[in-house]
Amino acid sequence: MNELDIISKTLDRLPSFHEMPVGPGDDCAQIVVENGLALVTSDMLLDGKHFDSKLHTLEEIINKVLGVNCSDIYAMGGLPTFASITIAFPNLNTNRGAFPDAVAKACNKYKVTLSGGDTNTWDGPLAVSLTLYGTAIKEPILRSGAKKGDLIFVTGKLGGSLASSRHLDPPNKRDAVVKLLDNLEISSMIDISDGLATDLRHILKASKVGAIIDSYSVPIHEDASSLDEALCDGEDFELCFTVDQKNADLIEKLGLDKSLGLYRIGKTTPNKNLLQLQTDSRLIEYQNVGFEHQ
Amino acid sequence: MNELDIISKTLDRLPSFHEMPVGPGDDCAQIVVENGLALVTSDMLLDGKHFDSKLHTLEEIINKVLGVNCSDIYAMGGLPTFASITIAFPNLNTNRGAFPDAVAKACNKYKVTLSGGDTNTWDGPLAVSLTLYGTAIKEPILRSGAKKGDLIFVTGKLGGSLASSRHLDPPNKRDAVVKLLDNLEISSMIDISDGLATDLRHILKASKVGAIIDSYSVPIHEDASSLDEALCDGEDFELCFTVDQKNADLIEKLGLDKSLGLYRIGKTTPNKNLLQLQTDSRLIEYQNVGFEHQ
Repeated sequence: MNELDIISKTLDRLPSFHEMPVGPGDDCAQIVVENGLALVTSDMLLDGKHFDSKLHTLEEIINKVLGVNCSDIYAMGGLPTFASITIAFPNLNTNRGAFPDAVAKACNKYKVTLSGGDTNTWDGPLAVSLTLYGTAIKEPILRSGAKKGDLIFVTGKLGGSLASSRHLDPPNKRDAVVKLLDNLEISSMIDISDGLATDLRHILKASKVGAIIDSYSVPIHEDASSLDEALCDGEDFELCFTVDQKNADLIEKLGLDKSLGLYRIGKTTPNKNLLQLQTDSRLIEYQNVGFEHQ
Repeated sequence: MNELDIISKTLDRLPSFHEMPVGPGDDCAQIVVENGLALVTSDMLLDGKHFDSKLHTLEEIINKVLGVNCSDIYAMGGLPTFASITIAFPNLNTNRGAFPDAVAKACNKYKVTLSGGDTNTWDGPLAVSLTLYGTAIKEPILRSGAKKGDLIFVTGKLGGSLASSRHLDPPNKRDAVVKLLDNLEISSMIDISDGLATDLRHILKASKVGAIIDSYSVPIHEDASSLDEALCDGEDFELCFTVDQKNADLIEKLGLDKSLGLYRIGKTTPNKNLLQLQTDSRLIEYQNVGFEHQ
């Protein structure tokens, strides 16, 4: 299957969720951007680093690259719209024929419309890059909006994602984001890709606050075996967000903690950049760092 | 220099030509899209295929990946706005420190604002992917708009680009596109990336017309040694466009052929998909195909 065959088969299978006056197939596509404002994010996944082509199927790899990009859009309080995908297949890869169905399946799952891409073969390992557009449901939710005394939540259990291969299928937080934004004012949000400790520190730095995490409230995933793993393992792709006391009360009142599987794990403090852990009666500084993507 | 250093140094150097309510650095950027309509294109360049990292500098490679994407935007009658770039550096590559300046230089040259990206290192060759947004100056100019009897133009000399390394520095057709669209109605346009013969055939197919090329009018580049090379060599990144007789006359009257270096090379015919070559008194079918990117 050559490049033109792959492209033509991919375009044949594509779902269309958003308005595109010019679809892929000309020099460019032309997309409609609601309100003239688009969220944009990009992630590249590489064989031997973010996946293992000897173990993982092309369908899993394409699902992951779209899923991790969606995670960044959700973290801004947005919903994904259009994706452009580029891929380099190894010359000897016999699995290129799986590309059209893999793309169609992932686009259907995440309600994303393909706005174009580029397929190649080369004398190197499998590499795939995706740029995703999205629309903020309200204003974009930044890392910098947390206020002293805000409560900190995560949207699911943490840790052991890379060890268990859970990272190949990032949790789809679409419904959680829609329901949270329909009901609450969220002050800051980030997706947990490098471990909660590292990603929460991004919020602390941008918002100029500190945080105390209640060690007994951190939801440790069944795939993890320690609190440190829940705080530092990479690629959970859950969301971490902050709300003020009024909105925290609303979460409980509306039962969103139960219906969306939210965990309240701590609160922000005036101690800029200081991440502390409350454990029994002791309060300790937590200096451990998360997973380092290079 | 690790990923965060590279990103921070890149963001420090960035020019900003377009409005971006949220810049890179959060989970996503947020960009302003004029009229709510964006052109989108993506291209991936791979070591050993589209460049040779042993011969070409990172600055040349980044310049090429932005230049070839701009070429697609120009071909729609648009101007580039925002770019998202992803790159995989080989582990042993010592040249990563050149990335921030290379990106800033290319963005300045093409008047493009960086909307984000992803930098990685891996145990594979250098790979770089870019997704570019743009705004159509008027309506997007498609491949499908050519009418029978239109005149065919190219914006520069053709052939020998890959053999001479000219492909590393695609001609910047920004001024040509602006002046053409300010003065004319263009019926169809494409950029010449796979050789004029192949790319003109895309126009013929989409527009359901044929074409006769006047063999003496095809501008053969000094880097090429034959008409076939001018018609079939890849990666010229000049534009091929069609206009009706009235607009062709206007090109001559306004002196755009001279000021922009345009060449009128033939005309379209009613013979669907048939590409013919007028040579002396003979009219022959031209079946040669251009450069095949895989």
